[in-house]
Amino acid sequence: MSAALIGIDWGTSSARAWRFDVQGRILAEHTAPLGVQRVEDGRFRYALKSLLGGEAPEGVPLLACGMIGSRQGWLEAPYVDCPAGFAAIAGGLVRVAEMGLAIVPGLKYRDAEGVPDVMRGEETQIFGALDDPAGRQLVVLPGTHSKWALVEGSRIERFATFMTGELYAVLCEHSILGRLAVAGADAAAFERGIGASLRPGAVLSHDLFSARTLALTGELAPEGVADYLSGLLLGAEVAAALGWVERNGACGLDATLVGAAALCARYDRALAIAGLAARSGPGDAAARGLWRIARHAGMVR
Amino acid sequence: MSAALIGIDWGTSSARAWRFDVQGRILAEHTAPLGVQRVEDGRFRYALKSLLGGEAPEGVPLLACGMIGSRQGWLEAPYVDCPAGFAAIAGGLVRVAEMGLAIVPGLKYRDAEGVPDVMRGEETQIFGALDDPAGRQLVVLPGTHSKWALVEGSRIERFATFMTGELYAVLCEHSILGRLAVAGADAAAFERGIGASLRPGAVLSHDLFSARTLALTGELAPEGVADYLSGLLLGAEVAAALGWVERNGACGLDATLVGAAALCARYDRALAIAGLAARSGPGDAAARGLWRIARHAGMVR
Repeated sequence: MSAALIGIDWGTSSARAWRFDVQGRILAEHTAPLGVQRVEDGRFRYALKSLLGGEAPEGVPLLACGMIGSRQGWLEAPYVDCPAGFAAIAGGLVRVAEMGLAIVPGLKYRDAEGVPDVMRGEETQIFGALDDPAGRQLVVLPGTHSKWALVEGSRIERFATFMTGELYAVLCEHSILGRLAVAGADAAAFERGIGASLRPGAVLSHDLFSARTLALTGELAPEGVADYLSGLLLGAEVAAALGWVERNGACGLDATLVGAAALCARYDRALAIAGLAARSGPGDAAARGLWRIARHAGMVR
Repeated sequence: MSAALIGIDWGTSSARAWRFDVQGRILAEHTAPLGVQRVEDGRFRYALKSLLGGEAPEGVPLLACGMIGSRQGWLEAPYVDCPAGFAAIAGGLVRVAEMGLAIVPGLKYRDAEGVPDVMRGEETQIFGALDDPAGRQLVVLPGTHSKWALVEGSRIERFATFMTGELYAVLCEHSILGRLAVAGADAAAFERGIGASLRPGAVLSHDLFSARTLALTGELAPEGVADYLSGLLLGAEVAAALGWVERNGACGLDATLVGAAALCARYDRALAIAGLAARSGPGDAAARGLWRIARHAGMVR
């Protein structure tokens, strides 16, 4: 059966492609470690062929999202300002004409002080995770740079980024705290870290040091240091994001968690401890979002 | 002239020694890159000889502070609990008997929730920076792990650590933010970062991402990224520490800044923007502290 669309989630380190039939059902999936950072000398056309296992079929439209549309990608798709719905995204598509490839723009949001925040790729996952019919929705995308987004009637109104995943990685790999850690999983240490960051007056740059002092005094096992640190960082994100949700008058919304299952499970625990109900978004949010954007852009019927 | 005391500030990466006369005046200073981490196989006696440029003179007492008293040092000097004054510190000295060497213990403070905080070496600098006569004093020691300490009548009542310097280092060297930075100094970017972190509702793990987005949108020069990041981190420390000062009923105290001049100048700027008056502590706070502790311990007259 021939494809009606090829959708590609093309990130920094890896790429995933899906072939869709005319009804938006996935016919096949391809993945390859061919993220934007790993493609040398702008050889994106060759990387795409590798990813798809051959030339893209003649006449089938292609739609890609993610870092492929950044300055370091194939073709820059300038950020579209929030609030942004399907029409704004469709209007911001850029095209690699000779390939029949369209690239989804990222989104930019300026807060009350005018400071910009950006996403690229997550907007597509959010569109894929939208309830149907679309009402008011809080979508949380854990990751290296976690995003919290408020959606209203299928428009992404605003969002905020937290560098939780990257802070965890650099602290584990390069700080004194990481040097104290011994491999292991410790759910109690994780929850202890969450609780510490959720208490009123918690200060991350101070509390991080307690991973060291508690280990020094034998009150935290070396096997628990990494999980305690993870709990501190997730707890700090959740505490701050709940303030953000409240300031934006969105209390009482469940959080829709979108991302890798193991990471979402950690956020689910942190949200539960903070008293926020969460539910799982679709596992194939990027694929669903690409299909939906393609429809709104008239690339498929 | 023969020395009455040899004092040593023996840290993780380097060591400094002073020879004092009977009145506590410095006769000579020695420095060497022979910090605890750089001494192999416990050869501290040999390292001390290198530092002093020969065997320690017979009959002259030696007093050392810093990581030399940690588990990785020459001999562990268990932490003394806060509040702690000269008597408690003198009571906690440990001795390498055959060398005539005493080692100053670090301090431990448990906050209201029982979470421990520790210092090792800074207690000696604080004693060296005490006003005479000693009243109530706020001492700030910027560094890899910055310390804020409240002193009352020459007793260190309580203190708090902020991992500001280490966060700055790992983010500059290993994160996406550091990769955006180009070498340069930008005082305006530094103050912009301070201001961002001092605003109500500031969230460090969110605001850090603005170093990236502002650079992406051309609103922050690549030469300003590192200083903006430094400002964000210092501002977050100052904002949190002012809350700590307030909770401990110590508003209105000037901060006495103790540490490297260039770093203290940055803190002085951040404190001024936050509305806290600061003054410089003595440049030789560790040496003065060692002398004072030695006197209180009866090692010198």
